[in-house]
Amino acid sequence: MKKRNAFYAQSGGVTAVINASACGLIETARKHKDKMGKVYAGRNGIIGALTEDLIDTSKESASAIAKLRHTPGGAFGSCRYKLKSLDENRAEYERLIDVFQAHDIGYFFYNGGGDSQDTAYKISQIGELLDYPITCIGIPKTIDNDLPITDNCPGFGSVAKYVAVSTKEAALDVRSMSKSSTKIFVMEVMGRHAGWIAAAGGLAAQEEGDAPHIILFPEIAFNEKKFLSRVKQSVKRYGYCVIVASEGVRDESGRFLAEAGSKDAFGHAQLGGLAPVLAELIKQQLGYKYHWAVADYLQRAARHIASKNDVAQAYALGKAAMELALKGKNAVMPTIVRKSDKPYRWSIGSALLADVANVEKMMPRNFISRNGFEITDTCRTYLEPLIQGEDYPPYRKGLPQYVTLKNIAVPKKLKKRFKVSL
Amino acid sequence: MKKRNAFYAQSGGVTAVINASACGLIETARKHKDKMGKVYAGRNGIIGALTEDLIDTSKESASAIAKLRHTPGGAFGSCRYKLKSLDENRAEYERLIDVFQAHDIGYFFYNGGGDSQDTAYKISQIGELLDYPITCIGIPKTIDNDLPITDNCPGFGSVAKYVAVSTKEAALDVRSMSKSSTKIFVMEVMGRHAGWIAAAGGLAAQEEGDAPHIILFPEIAFNEKKFLSRVKQSVKRYGYCVIVASEGVRDESGRFLAEAGSKDAFGHAQLGGLAPVLAELIKQQLGYKYHWAVADYLQRAARHIASKNDVAQAYALGKAAMELALKGKNAVMPTIVRKSDKPYRWSIGSALLADVANVEKMMPRNFISRNGFEITDTCRTYLEPLIQGEDYPPYRKGLPQYVTLKNIAVPKKLKKRFKVSL
Repeated sequence: MKKRNAFYAQSGGVTAVINASACGLIETARKHKDKMGKVYAGRNGIIGALTEDLIDTSKESASAIAKLRHTPGGAFGSCRYKLKSLDENRAEYERLIDVFQAHDIGYFFYNGGGDSQDTAYKISQIGELLDYPITCIGIPKTIDNDLPITDNCPGFGSVAKYVAVSTKEAALDVRSMSKSSTKIFVMEVMGRHAGWIAAAGGLAAQEEGDAPHIILFPEIAFNEKKFLSRVKQSVKRYGYCVIVASEGVRDESGRFLAEAGSKDAFGHAQLGGLAPVLAELIKQQLGYKYHWAVADYLQRAARHIASKNDVAQAYALGKAAMELALKGKNAVMPTIVRKSDKPYRWSIGSALLADVANVEKMMPRNFISRNGFEITDTCRTYLEPLIQGEDYPPYRKGLPQYVTLKNIAVPKKLKKRFKVSL
Repeated sequence: MKKRNAFYAQSGGVTAVINASACGLIETARKHKDKMGKVYAGRNGIIGALTEDLIDTSKESASAIAKLRHTPGGAFGSCRYKLKSLDENRAEYERLIDVFQAHDIGYFFYNGGGDSQDTAYKISQIGELLDYPITCIGIPKTIDNDLPITDNCPGFGSVAKYVAVSTKEAALDVRSMSKSSTKIFVMEVMGRHAGWIAAAGGLAAQEEGDAPHIILFPEIAFNEKKFLSRVKQSVKRYGYCVIVASEGVRDESGRFLAEAGSKDAFGHAQLGGLAPVLAELIKQQLGYKYHWAVADYLQRAARHIASKNDVAQAYALGKAAMELALKGKNAVMPTIVRKSDKPYRWSIGSALLADVANVEKMMPRNFISRNGFEITDTCRTYLEPLIQGEDYPPYRKGLPQYVTLKNIAVPKKLKKRFKVSL
């Protein structure tokens, strides 16, 4: 049987461990050179496929590929670009098939979140429809942790660890200063729709009185009175109050608090995030001195404090994706299967893309305490293993040594150009 | 000779390594039990001395004290409380002497920045004036790195490492996404008066084109036109632009930019920091999509990514402080002496508190490039050793194991209470 090439693309927001999946996939392909051709990566994700801008990963040394395991960000570039439906933009799909055909690509690997799994699923259908045989495999990745079936999503565990560690550390700082200075610390974390990341902040609390004293979830409508009362109580009891707030917190009318606080009657633009809005509210109502932080990209890029389990799973899923393809499986996504909580044991399973596409896994209500400000023991049992273990990158001159690949382009074969509107 | 007790207090903003100094001091005292009495720590810094709220560190196990070396924050509590001059508030000094006398305290150790060294100096003078023999030793600590004579200040190296690592990581994220999404990343760092911390972000750039592409220093007046032109140029050349901005950046009239941007004609309160102001300016003028982060306390509490050299120096200075006291030195502060840059070699020296008090070490102009947006090689040579080496804390269940001391109070001996107005 003739060997065919593989296409791999990174999609959506990148993470501290998405390159570990790329590493697992490419290293596995290299071990099966008898069956698998070259791995071409899309430069800037699927955009690279549409514009025939493919990266020849075979030009990278084994050592460079190995370093992907400890390098954050997307080594080939990623993008936020969602393919439309076949009805809406058939030209895009035809173009993809043209590019795949020109480069003898028989395998399509798409490393991303919910939208990306949906795209991988569509391409598997369209391959059939247009009579172009292509094996489509999704590789899970999202810090939002909202893919179904898999125990968790690579990228989330490392953000969770970053948020838990940062909360613990900042809390020690605030506690030290609270007698005469800052009493309030608000840390804003990512998670527009689901509170998984905010929940991870809750892991910092290991003993009674430990921070965070308040977690604000997007799932729980913000109640100013209850919130302020709890802030006051925390300062009274412990001398300080640490709040971990999801950027996606909404008020009872469903409006994002971050917007509510910063747009005034004159319609002035939003400048700050949610953290300063909350901090200022506390200052005005209770008079406490505050500090706040918005970690933003720092949290999802923080490879220096990645979770060892997360790295191992990201690598294993990339490897499993290639193995599934080699076994002739199609329209599937490898998953993490939890075998036990304590000790945490897991294995690799697989799910049909049809079952993954367009399904969001929300945080169960029983993961949040009845008062809406804490995580429950059930949630802790789920989260704890995901942040376990450290997997430090190598350092030189005090800085982590992350790899920048050569990213050499595959010579174009098509005469036709394709315009992608960004 | 009768043994006398020691008083130790943490002062001002805490750091990732101030407890390492406490560790060095207490462990050294314990090795000299023949000459040194107990070490009492001020609960919440000097406030604890004024209110006779002393912590008996002899009640802590050797293992707990050893863990201070890897625990961020201020283990005994710190405060922002500056003693007035003797003329303004003689009662405060008399009270201190009363408390010291009641507990047979013959040594005063003050672990802090410029103000604290000034306080230590004053107390050494007042001891003489009031005929109460007391040995006063300052221990340097400040993330602002602005103490004179010493090569650098404990706490700074670890913030510098955090900022350099975070800049490098976030830059990989932005670079991955820049084709179709975020092109601008602004990271706001501490440093109200001096650009030392912002300068440390510059260490992330190791090759041409590396982030940060722009550093904004408090020392250089913000010029909107030049700034925007450089942002545009960076996006054109590299596809993205990463900016590290000191919170203390001012416009040409000397006004803090963070304030300028957030107070409008209607006098609405400032909510955000500098980062959102800069990001919004870029969006409005150049149209680029942005993200921004404000690390705030995370940067100075980040013991998980502390600099090994910083930890070693913080410990060594605490140890040296105790040794100076044992040798009978008074009104001095141990310092770091740089013996060579490459390899970095250092030793412990000492300075007179009289020479340290009220002197601020600013960043030399030749540490900033002529265009005002970068660090020079001279600056890099100075900074590089300070972030070198990793000194990871131990972990359990995915989290660093920081110690919380018992902090048992020494029974009060004075009948008189003293009111501290906070």
